Amino acid sequence: MSLITSEKTIERLSLYRRILMRLRDDGETVVFSHQLAVPAGITPAQVRRDIMNLGCNGTPRSGYRIKELLTGITEVFDTPQSQRAILVGIGRLGLALLAHFSGRWRWLHIHAAFDSDPAKSSGVISGCHCYPVDQLAVVVREWNIGIGIITVPANAAQSVADQMCAAGVTGLLNFTSVRLNVPRSVFVENVDLTASFEKVAYFARRHEAAGVTG
Amino acid sequence: MSLITSEKTIERLSLYRRILMRLRDDGETVVFSHQLAVPAGITPAQVRRDIMNLGCNGTPRSGYRIKELLTGITEVFDTPQSQRAILVGIGRLGLALLAHFSGRWRWLHIHAAFDSDPAKSSGVISGCHCYPVDQLAVVVREWNIGIGIITVPANAAQSVADQMCAAGVTGLLNFTSVRLNVPRSVFVENVDLTASFEKVAYFARRHEAAGVTG
Repeated sequence: MSLITSEKTIERLSLYRRILMRLRDDGETVVFSHQLAVPAGITPAQVRRDIMNLGCNGTPRSGYRIKELLTGITEVFDTPQSQRAILVGIGRLGLALLAHFSGRWRWLHIHAAFDSDPAKSSGVISGCHCYPVDQLAVVVREWNIGIGIITVPANAAQSVADQMCAAGVTGLLNFTSVRLNVPRSVFVENVDLTASFEKVAYFARRHEAAGVTG
Repeated sequence: MSLITSEKTIERLSLYRRILMRLRDDGETVVFSHQLAVPAGITPAQVRRDIMNLGCNGTPRSGYRIKELLTGITEVFDTPQSQRAILVGIGRLGLALLAHFSGRWRWLHIHAAFDSDPAKSSGVISGCHCYPVDQLAVVVREWNIGIGIITVPANAAQSVADQMCAAGVTGLLNFTSVRLNVPRSVFVENVDLTASFEKVAYFARRHEAAGVTG
């Protein structure tokens, strides 16, 4: 298939894969576009376009073979070698992400974690070796690591990003409220949990005040 | 000020507030639009429009008083009573969110956590009381809780959302890969950590392959 450049498409494929895995685990072999559209919260037409772009056979009428769709999506995401990430900032959120993502996928995992606090930067957490942050460049180069996850306090975020980029990381998953300044060669995805929580709180209040009924 | 209906505006105000607090803590009293624009990753013109909509005084030339901006944003977000949330699903991610958000703000906190596993649904975690999930409706009504955080496995997500909505919750922060079916009166924010991680991995690989230089 052709290269996908749209972030939204990649997000949808990631979601389809998890829905398809659940269907497969339930014993299903064929899926119809609406079965992906409803749980993904999009239109069946969008699902069919995405499937067409994957180059998978099947028709809206007879359905699509789940196994073939999973293979198609796997070809987009997976690499011959598993992709490795590092995480910097072994605080509460960092620990949770290590546990949450630990051993979850064959194709993508957090290889090492770093912290500037000596008390946190040794040993193994959720199967992941911990190091002092001054070992970052060595580990990134030795293990050919492409992805960096940043869970440090805001005032350390840019410096950590700089070290990751200098060592050769090309994708950052940034959980801080700092919008990072990085080379054009590096992709950044910001996850702002505080903004999400405050947004829900704001609109929950508005909806309550409006007394909208379902 | 007028009601804000744009989700993007609310996200920006949440981010501005945290940047302004850092500046204030550094001893600054005046801010220029570019000082918010750069860390927020947007244009100074957008910052000035947002500030104008807040009804704050100041000019692009002389700057804006940080204290006044913080008061303006606080009026948007904060309520006379602190807003309360509940969390359902005391797994790794749930525990991390409890710890991450615990006691962070005066205006918004997680009041109680629930799980279907009796081993997890008692005691206090990160200052938050834990209950069996069948107590959900009672706690929501007693404490007038408007916000529900969902960190259960995918197959339990819709059922938990149904219980929250029936009890009167009007905002959901959904960390599962299920797109929830809820009444129109309920606002849903989806946070898909897996999609974010897979997206970074995909684009990190593309950027590496392309050898884009910064």
